[in-house]
Amino acid sequence: MGKGLPEELAQQLAARFGERFSTSQAVRLQHGTDESAYEPCPPDAVVFAQSTEEVAEVVRLCAAQRVPVIPFGVGSSVEGHLLAVEGGVSIDLSRMNRVLAVRTEDLTATVQAGVTREDLNRELAHSGFFFSVDPGANASIGGMVATSASGTNTVRYGTMRDNILSLTVVTAEGEVLRTARRARKSSAGYCLTQLFCGSEGTLGIITEVTVKLHPQPEAVAAAVVNFADVKGAVDCVIQAIQTGVALARAEMLDALTMRAINAHSKTTLPEAPTLFLEFGGSEAQVREQGAALQAIAQDCGGGEFQWALRPEERSRLWTPRHHAYFAALQLRPGSRSFTTDACVPISQLAACLAETVDDIATSGLVAPVFGHVGDGNFHCLLLVDPRNAEEVRIAEELSERLMRRALRYDGTCTGEHGVGLHKIPYLEEEHGATAVEVMRRIKRALDPHNILNPGKVVRLAGSEARAA
Amino acid sequence: MGKGLPEELAQQLAARFGERFSTSQAVRLQHGTDESAYEPCPPDAVVFAQSTEEVAEVVRLCAAQRVPVIPFGVGSSVEGHLLAVEGGVSIDLSRMNRVLAVRTEDLTATVQAGVTREDLNRELAHSGFFFSVDPGANASIGGMVATSASGTNTVRYGTMRDNILSLTVVTAEGEVLRTARRARKSSAGYCLTQLFCGSEGTLGIITEVTVKLHPQPEAVAAAVVNFADVKGAVDCVIQAIQTGVALARAEMLDALTMRAINAHSKTTLPEAPTLFLEFGGSEAQVREQGAALQAIAQDCGGGEFQWALRPEERSRLWTPRHHAYFAALQLRPGSRSFTTDACVPISQLAACLAETVDDIATSGLVAPVFGHVGDGNFHCLLLVDPRNAEEVRIAEELSERLMRRALRYDGTCTGEHGVGLHKIPYLEEEHGATAVEVMRRIKRALDPHNILNPGKVVRLAGSEARAA
Repeated sequence: MGKGLPEELAQQLAARFGERFSTSQAVRLQHGTDESAYEPCPPDAVVFAQSTEEVAEVVRLCAAQRVPVIPFGVGSSVEGHLLAVEGGVSIDLSRMNRVLAVRTEDLTATVQAGVTREDLNRELAHSGFFFSVDPGANASIGGMVATSASGTNTVRYGTMRDNILSLTVVTAEGEVLRTARRARKSSAGYCLTQLFCGSEGTLGIITEVTVKLHPQPEAVAAAVVNFADVKGAVDCVIQAIQTGVALARAEMLDALTMRAINAHSKTTLPEAPTLFLEFGGSEAQVREQGAALQAIAQDCGGGEFQWALRPEERSRLWTPRHHAYFAALQLRPGSRSFTTDACVPISQLAACLAETVDDIATSGLVAPVFGHVGDGNFHCLLLVDPRNAEEVRIAEELSERLMRRALRYDGTCTGEHGVGLHKIPYLEEEHGATAVEVMRRIKRALDPHNILNPGKVVRLAGSEARAA
Repeated sequence: MGKGLPEELAQQLAARFGERFSTSQAVRLQHGTDESAYEPCPPDAVVFAQSTEEVAEVVRLCAAQRVPVIPFGVGSSVEGHLLAVEGGVSIDLSRMNRVLAVRTEDLTATVQAGVTREDLNRELAHSGFFFSVDPGANASIGGMVATSASGTNTVRYGTMRDNILSLTVVTAEGEVLRTARRARKSSAGYCLTQLFCGSEGTLGIITEVTVKLHPQPEAVAAAVVNFADVKGAVDCVIQAIQTGVALARAEMLDALTMRAINAHSKTTLPEAPTLFLEFGGSEAQVREQGAALQAIAQDCGGGEFQWALRPEERSRLWTPRHHAYFAALQLRPGSRSFTTDACVPISQLAACLAETVDDIATSGLVAPVFGHVGDGNFHCLLLVDPRNAEEVRIAEELSERLMRRALRYDGTCTGEHGVGLHKIPYLEEEHGATAVEVMRRIKRALDPHNILNPGKVVRLAGSEARAA
């Protein structure tokens, strides 16, 4: 925890930012709370920035006093990224919410970091183009870059990493850089765009993002289909990918998640493993892809397909999927979720899932499971009463076993949520000591005084702390 | 130039590698010559490595004496990457040519760095899958990662950057790391895969690569169509992309390149700006895409389409494109090519090309132009007699103006060839001083004694030279 803001810095920030500087308990608490099960950890103060230059000013003032800075988007991250574990100033970017340019002729848009994905897609509504990355939450684009987010339509359009062209970043010294121009590809030097993507605020603060846009497909079809078991649902998607059937989305919800949805939405959907699917393209392509998938599904023990073609019908059909996370939490009112994020090579997904489902059954926890099957990525919501230490311990151990299981299958401990606070120990198991030492060297090179979101992603030795 | 290898190091390497260590003039010259117009610059010695561990051994021995190491694949780079401008040992990876694993069920393969893209595709021939990146030359996969290569089907399948999952890398200390597991996506720490991609041997030596594979489409069609002018050809492709017509390849050759091809191949193709196209998918998709593109081409002043469906016909139709580079060189026997590599946002491509064509006309140079139009990337082959200093000067100035023009259009000075030796000054113009300083910090952090391919990508201050 921090030792409070140096008086001089507080005065400087108050003088410069007026009402946009706050040390109120409520504002600090909000900025020290994310969607994870971890205890809130408020910063010493919050600044609401309105421009890249303002972010740079805050960083320069804080850097002079070696005070940590923690970027804040909408607070939807789930790995403790925004918890101010070493105190400092939270820089709230939510007022940096302008779409700076939409260039449909280039299939790109440039936004301030605080623009949310829904904001951007609203702005694009009548353009014929859309921004594809959809992690569920209405996250800020800057936050999505910082965590290398992905989500439901990664199988077709890629992750955040695949959908960015250029970033504006404030460095640890409070200088401003742009990582790239707007060409669709470049070999001009080390790829800083991809280095800052996924760096979780520890190498620089992302203030503007140029993203790729995609043409709205002429036709879209949604479908839902149940399977006898999880393996059938997974095999169906994997076979589709292996044979080149283009899926726009392919989400698997397990029986417990379906039960949660029925309870939450007063529906009577079959409580069996279910695939939520989406196809896009020309009318003929969509028909062809749908037929190909139905044939594969039948081989994998799938039932009847429910189809929806018109936007409002599709939206209705997919609503249960969109509500899955909150419905699942309601399985145990008052519980919080330890949300796992394993991702394995797709051929290993069925096996990894099966072992995990067995492990959950043995643990006695209530833990709905759903996944972005086409990416090999799935989440277990380990629902625990945070006041029940035994339950918390069981959940933590289960989560640990799952991460190690993912690594055994040559997968990753985090497919899309990031490292944050609690996955640091697994980073070394995943990448090895040499690779993590390279990461530490990069951190030291770019943030020598360790003021950028300290304590996340990589841990530096005590001698390198700011106080030293 | 180097001052020759320290005697002790030469003895160590000879003792360890026997006949696979060479200081012969011929071997050194071959390893100091690339496909660029730059003068050869041989290393002091060459080691033919057969494994990651051997590469690490060479690096450790050289690091102890602060002697540079320069990775060598097949020598097809065009920006002087492999020239031993500060002497040292060339590590030839061409004998590391084993395909270590093909996992069609995961759509991945793992290869040693010396495997060429044609080797890999030969290995995959009957698998139903293929490796997509095709820069023209039969480059090594390791070299293609190191330069962040791309090529003809980037418009559909992405660049090298988009087609790698994990790298094995030897560090400046001779340690071995793996940048990632094999999951299709990961948020586990700084993305070292993308950092080493495009680092041109200056941050580490890539020894193994896990690439993505793609399912062979059920049907493929190739087409060739002429246009009245370059703008028509470019507009056609850009409109196709903007409207979501899936193109597998879209290459534009200008009239002069077509003339070169006719002279080279004794053909009688129309000497007009020409698009070489490829479509892939189901039979119905290919028909649909082809029809959509024909309609667009007609609007853009395109002529009749020539189609080819069967493999041997397609190959025949595309042969001129594959021979374009060598045919173009033959326009002036004995000449060498300064090959430019500008890449701009696609909406700016027609304008940037038009200005460049005018500039070439004014210069009096013979310079065929062709491009990966869908990426906004095009190459001018500025053909000069290397002994004619005036011509060389004119070509260099033209190249310089083109790079600045690309930057004015918010593009890059290098879309796929890399920085190498001669684009270092433009890196700062492209990215700004702060971004380049971040690159320098990364270089110093990962290679403190500047032994990894020194003098390329970023230039360090004299005081940081190895001798210091």
